[in-house]
Amino acid sequence: MKSLKEKIRLEGSVIGTEIVKVDSFLNHQIDVEFLEEIGMEFKKRFNDVDVDRILTVEASGIAIACLAAPYFEYPPVVFAKKAAPSTMNSGYYESEAKSFTKGTVSAFKLSKQYLHEGENVLILDDFLASGQASLALAEIVEQAGAKVAGIGAVIEKGYQGGSEILRNKGYRVESLAVINEVCDGKIYFDDNRG
Amino acid sequence: MKSLKEKIRLEGSVIGTEIVKVDSFLNHQIDVEFLEEIGMEFKKRFNDVDVDRILTVEASGIAIACLAAPYFEYPPVVFAKKAAPSTMNSGYYESEAKSFTKGTVSAFKLSKQYLHEGENVLILDDFLASGQASLALAEIVEQAGAKVAGIGAVIEKGYQGGSEILRNKGYRVESLAVINEVCDGKIYFDDNRG
Repeated sequence: MKSLKEKIRLEGSVIGTEIVKVDSFLNHQIDVEFLEEIGMEFKKRFNDVDVDRILTVEASGIAIACLAAPYFEYPPVVFAKKAAPSTMNSGYYESEAKSFTKGTVSAFKLSKQYLHEGENVLILDDFLASGQASLALAEIVEQAGAKVAGIGAVIEKGYQGGSEILRNKGYRVESLAVINEVCDGKIYFDDNRG
Repeated sequence: MKSLKEKIRLEGSVIGTEIVKVDSFLNHQIDVEFLEEIGMEFKKRFNDVDVDRILTVEASGIAIACLAAPYFEYPPVVFAKKAAPSTMNSGYYESEAKSFTKGTVSAFKLSKQYLHEGENVLILDDFLASGQASLALAEIVEQAGAKVAGIGAVIEKGYQGGSEILRNKGYRVESLAVINEVCDGKIYFDDNRG
């Protein structure tokens, strides 16, 4: 997605050799008009699959999923929680994911009320890096007896190998921008993908 | 907002004597089409104020702010974080809020890059209860030398007194549904407000 790569080049910043920070439009401040374009692009990429539900994880994923939903004719959106509030008292699905950025392991939790057997579930998230978060979401889908319709990421860090792991497990992955390398503060994209 | 009160009556559940749970459309599963109506209603209520930026706090607030933004002509949305990720390395504003539901104290953090002196900031959130979260957000706005244009809540728990505290501090508060009392598992609304 050309406009996305331009925006990452213009507004993104690099921390160390692996972290790309896009807080100006995706992870802290949110450019809603631009995320609508992102949503439209996800619809183009997944136009041939049935989507009964969009699944993401708090926090940044919520904006992406909500702004994509209108283009998929408003399926319910549900987000996994990283900490169970005291009000989550009935049964839930649970899986574990390591966050590369935060250096922590999160237990993703999703109430059994909001994901059902047989549903086609599109997983959307901001970053695809090592693939751990997507795998944890896919695991929840499978615990429910539902089907992963696809996995969409706004930005893939190709050098962390996550998309290959997901594809080897049989999941369809669409990343709107794929970063091949981060070097000397510069971001290099894979121009054949994304 | 009549449709909101109906939805809370139909889908909301009561835990104990104080907690109202609306996980089916607001706090876990998200009904995006309905949140667009909510966004439109916020625009009606705050039609006479200038809004340069919408401020909320993760996680549920993100959906509300993002789906309201189009009706305010796409001002930037920014959400306070409850934990600073390792990528938040430059200066930030900080304030403290107690979460009634989770029984915890959160430190809200917001990068100084995404809130500026002189801006008119609309604060939007899911619940207004004791008012602590809104106060913490308003404090951040004032730390930045910006101005609180108004505080909008989807659901106010009137019996926890937050809106009075906020109004006494001079803030304009708009709640789309005001719950007066929760008793024997039933929800009673204030039909003169909301």
